[in-house]
Amino acid sequence: MLVLITYDVNTETAAGKKRLRKVAKQCENYGRRVQNSVFECIVDNAQCVMLKALLNDIIDENVDSLRLYYLGNKYQTKVEHFGVDRGIQVDQPLIL
Amino acid sequence: MLVLITYDVNTETAAGKKRLRKVAKQCENYGRRVQNSVFECIVDNAQCVMLKALLNDIIDENVDSLRLYYLGNKYQTKVEHFGVDRGIQVDQPLIL
Repeated sequence: MLVLITYDVNTETAAGKKRLRKVAKQCENYGRRVQNSVFECIVDNAQCVMLKALLNDIIDENVDSLRLYYLGNKYQTKVEHFGVDRGIQVDQPLIL
Repeated sequence: MLVLITYDVNTETAAGKKRLRKVAKQCENYGRRVQNSVFECIVDNAQCVMLKALLNDIIDENVDSLRLYYLGNKYQTKVEHFGVDRGIQVDQPLIL
C-alpha cells in the first residue's frame, strides 16, 4: 500500500535538519522523497508498523509534526502533480 | 471528499514566502493547514477543479512542486498523526 508521510520540522536549527535527514533516510528505504518533507512509501502492514516505530524514535514529538496518509493499493489515480518533479515513481525500476 | 495538498516552495525568498501565503489562503477556504505547507481540504468535484485552477495560477511551476492526494469521503481512518498538532479537524465546527 502507499503511505504518504509528511513531516513538519523546523529546519532552521541544526538538530531539526538532522532529524529531517534521518526521517528521509528511513522513508527512502521504502519509496521516494517527492518534496522536501513529503515521502511516498510502499509498504505492507508489517513494514508500516516498523517504519512508524523508527520515525517516532527520530522525531521530537514536542515540536515536530508527523502525519501518515493511507492511500491503499490502488493509488495511481489518487495522486496529481503540478510543477517541478524531484523524484522518480516509487514502483518504477531505478536505473543506476 | 478530502484532498490533501502538499506544496514545496523555497521560503528563503520573499517571493516564495508570498506564494506560500497565497496558497495557504486559498486552501484554508476549504479546510485547514495541518503543517507548514500541507493542507487538508474538503471539496466537491467542482470546488476541486476551481481550487486547482487557483493554485496553478499562484505557483511558479518552474521551481515549485504542488501535489494533490485524493483520499475520498471515508478519510477518517486514513490519517494518523504524531507529535504536535497545529490545526483543528477540518469537519469539526470552529468556535470563534
